[in-house]
Amino acid sequence: MSTAATVRAAIVVTGDEVLHGRVAESNGAFLARWLEAHGVIPERITVVPDDAAVIRDLVLSHVEDGVDLVITSGGLGGTHDDVTMAAVGEAAGRALYLDAGALATIEARVRSFPLGQRVAPEIRAAANEKQAHVPEGSNVLPPVGTAPGCVVPIGRGSLVVVLPGPPFELQPMWQAATEHDPLLRTMLGRVPDRGRQVLRIAGTIETQMIEALRDLGPSATDGVRMGICAKAGELEVTLADDGRIGAAAELASRLQDAFGTRLYSVDGSRLETVVGRLLVEAGQHLALAESCTGGRIGERLTSVAGASGWFLGGVVSYANSAKRDLLGVDAAILANPGAVSEPAARAMAAGARLAFGADWGLSVTGIAGPSGGTADKPVGTVYLGCVGPGVDAVAHHQLRGDRARIREGAAALALHLLRRALAGEIRGDSVSPE
Amino acid sequence: MSTAATVRAAIVVTGDEVLHGRVAESNGAFLARWLEAHGVIPERITVVPDDAAVIRDLVLSHVEDGVDLVITSGGLGGTHDDVTMAAVGEAAGRALYLDAGALATIEARVRSFPLGQRVAPEIRAAANEKQAHVPEGSNVLPPVGTAPGCVVPIGRGSLVVVLPGPPFELQPMWQAATEHDPLLRTMLGRVPDRGRQVLRIAGTIETQMIEALRDLGPSATDGVRMGICAKAGELEVTLADDGRIGAAAELASRLQDAFGTRLYSVDGSRLETVVGRLLVEAGQHLALAESCTGGRIGERLTSVAGASGWFLGGVVSYANSAKRDLLGVDAAILANPGAVSEPAARAMAAGARLAFGADWGLSVTGIAGPSGGTADKPVGTVYLGCVGPGVDAVAHHQLRGDRARIREGAAALALHLLRRALAGEIRGDSVSPE
Repeated sequence: MSTAATVRAAIVVTGDEVLHGRVAESNGAFLARWLEAHGVIPERITVVPDDAAVIRDLVLSHVEDGVDLVITSGGLGGTHDDVTMAAVGEAAGRALYLDAGALATIEARVRSFPLGQRVAPEIRAAANEKQAHVPEGSNVLPPVGTAPGCVVPIGRGSLVVVLPGPPFELQPMWQAATEHDPLLRTMLGRVPDRGRQVLRIAGTIETQMIEALRDLGPSATDGVRMGICAKAGELEVTLADDGRIGAAAELASRLQDAFGTRLYSVDGSRLETVVGRLLVEAGQHLALAESCTGGRIGERLTSVAGASGWFLGGVVSYANSAKRDLLGVDAAILANPGAVSEPAARAMAAGARLAFGADWGLSVTGIAGPSGGTADKPVGTVYLGCVGPGVDAVAHHQLRGDRARIREGAAALALHLLRRALAGEIRGDSVSPE
Repeated sequence: MSTAATVRAAIVVTGDEVLHGRVAESNGAFLARWLEAHGVIPERITVVPDDAAVIRDLVLSHVEDGVDLVITSGGLGGTHDDVTMAAVGEAAGRALYLDAGALATIEARVRSFPLGQRVAPEIRAAANEKQAHVPEGSNVLPPVGTAPGCVVPIGRGSLVVVLPGPPFELQPMWQAATEHDPLLRTMLGRVPDRGRQVLRIAGTIETQMIEALRDLGPSATDGVRMGICAKAGELEVTLADDGRIGAAAELASRLQDAFGTRLYSVDGSRLETVVGRLLVEAGQHLALAESCTGGRIGERLTSVAGASGWFLGGVVSYANSAKRDLLGVDAAILANPGAVSEPAARAMAAGARLAFGADWGLSVTGIAGPSGGTADKPVGTVYLGCVGPGVDAVAHHQLRGDRARIREGAAALALHLLRRALAGEIRGDSVSPE
């Protein structure tokens, strides 16, 4: 019944490229998400320069503060400004040595890069040897790219896991380490299993959740760790048992009663996954007609592996001529009331459905800005169309924010419209707000 | 001739949603990018929980270490777990007071939210009053959403700038503060102007840059602060004068000689912007045919404001029937050699060009995985087609990584193919690697 996590963790992100704003840092969020899902909340994520003394001191201060698990990302490249391995070795009091196995793997990997073949051999060799150096007494983590990582014992039973900076290297290496590295497995095995659920609630703002919790009474959140996060078009709510087994599931069920069909995901599945699942269940296919979103809805849907089972394709009808020629939108509609209008959205959805021979057509047309707005149709005006079996609906939204935010919001709202139609919440052409 | 920055900065990101991995942190990168472009490199970005004591102690330790400018993001919401304003007030020894002007702005803002009207009045009022509290003696920054920020004097001439967490609120508020807040303007005015350039080099890896720098001789980087960052399909190189005026421009010019046309951007412009500029210069229009990228290329191109001047649209031809019916790809090609092949890529590009009446057609077809690969065409097989005035070219790539990385890489390589064709580097159907 303890509420204390049994592993204390911290994340250290190294890299001038992050502090200089050249790279949006995503490794911290990835590791935090993984840890949270496994019952460990990192206490701190710190981004520091590629400076060996700074990295060493920060790792040492975490270990001295009683942190069990320090995960570093970055600074494992083949150049002199990649210093993380040396810094961690110094913190742990372990000299670096050239690991022959790691070197052989790196050399084989570099030989398979076409561009690498164009680089002078002595520059390649120096980079390879630099990357094959790891602290004595550490477990080497095999490279995904050319940089091995390692798990380094430090202090009284603490560990430092050293991972590379590129996310496509870090993520599989971390996953493999949690599965295969004996030191890391033992440490993570100390964390008790807890109930945990991620809910997604459409068309809801944070104060509405506060109100719902008040209505459930003061004990509703007892024994639950709850996180609420407002995202484009929805709230993401994370619930985890924190003191009482089953408390998260109980609260999830009460929130389902409170929010009804707006609560559309109880297992954390993303909107595009839920839509795909509904289409598979119905044995139906979808086609898109996107204007101001420019392909973003298609990109979200096709990020789901296996999307070809229910997604036929779409037309990005950016020019009016494309709306007319590829989607069959009547030139009279495009002239008046215009391409950003209820009839245009309806015709685009119907046109996509017809052009692809799909069961469902979904459309977006709007003004993302910064220019193009008028008094009648200001920037942020968006019309969504959804046409399918028994459904011929259009929704109008007035969105706020800059071009990127309006496009992202329009894509999310279109997918929500389709989700509601697939779930049977929308019939005919009546769309009431969620 | 001093190499020392005259303003030392640190960023403190608060928010359980980040540590719990619910939100990918982007405010640190945004602020770091802005600061770097204005001659200030933040020394540290730290993500900490919504815990007033932790935030207070971190702010104090930065100020005691001699940091001039601490920027916080997040924790300004209307609920009890939003504690940043109180924590910063405590660090600065300044009590919070209810700012009447801020409250009036918040109330007006909340009245304009449709969803806000559904929340009980007493819950709304409590949230509004909470958000209108700021430290005494601070400059209030007007809210973009419902949370005001502030600029708080602390220690001996240091400042804390308190900003909200949502990026679409933080970014305009920060921009406005740098333009209008007298305390912040005075501090940033201490930073000397320096030459600075961001270069983008296609088809190049980091060791090739190391080799190029070696060939330029040991003094090539004297007086320049240089950052190299490998991104999908390119290197991003940041150069800034660091001790000698004009040093960055000089190195940029030497790198242009070394890399030739591969160095395609000397002012930091992104690939989609460069492509759009080339199309505008040529007075030509583009259409797309995307398969495995699902709309990502269209989304990138239409992220550029004014894209409607040179982008007509595209077909996301995910199903083979769409490749046949909307793009006119011969059924015989789709049967053999198949939809992922050189002839299919060529026919898709030509089909898009024809369907939209465009000058240029650009296509992508490939296998993003995780399933769908064969011995002949493993996951990561990608064919790109580019058809336009005097150009009818196809490129083949074998990409590595997971579904997301293959899709991102294919989109970037397609845009690079088009860029080279528009720049006259590709004629007929011959495509040699960059």
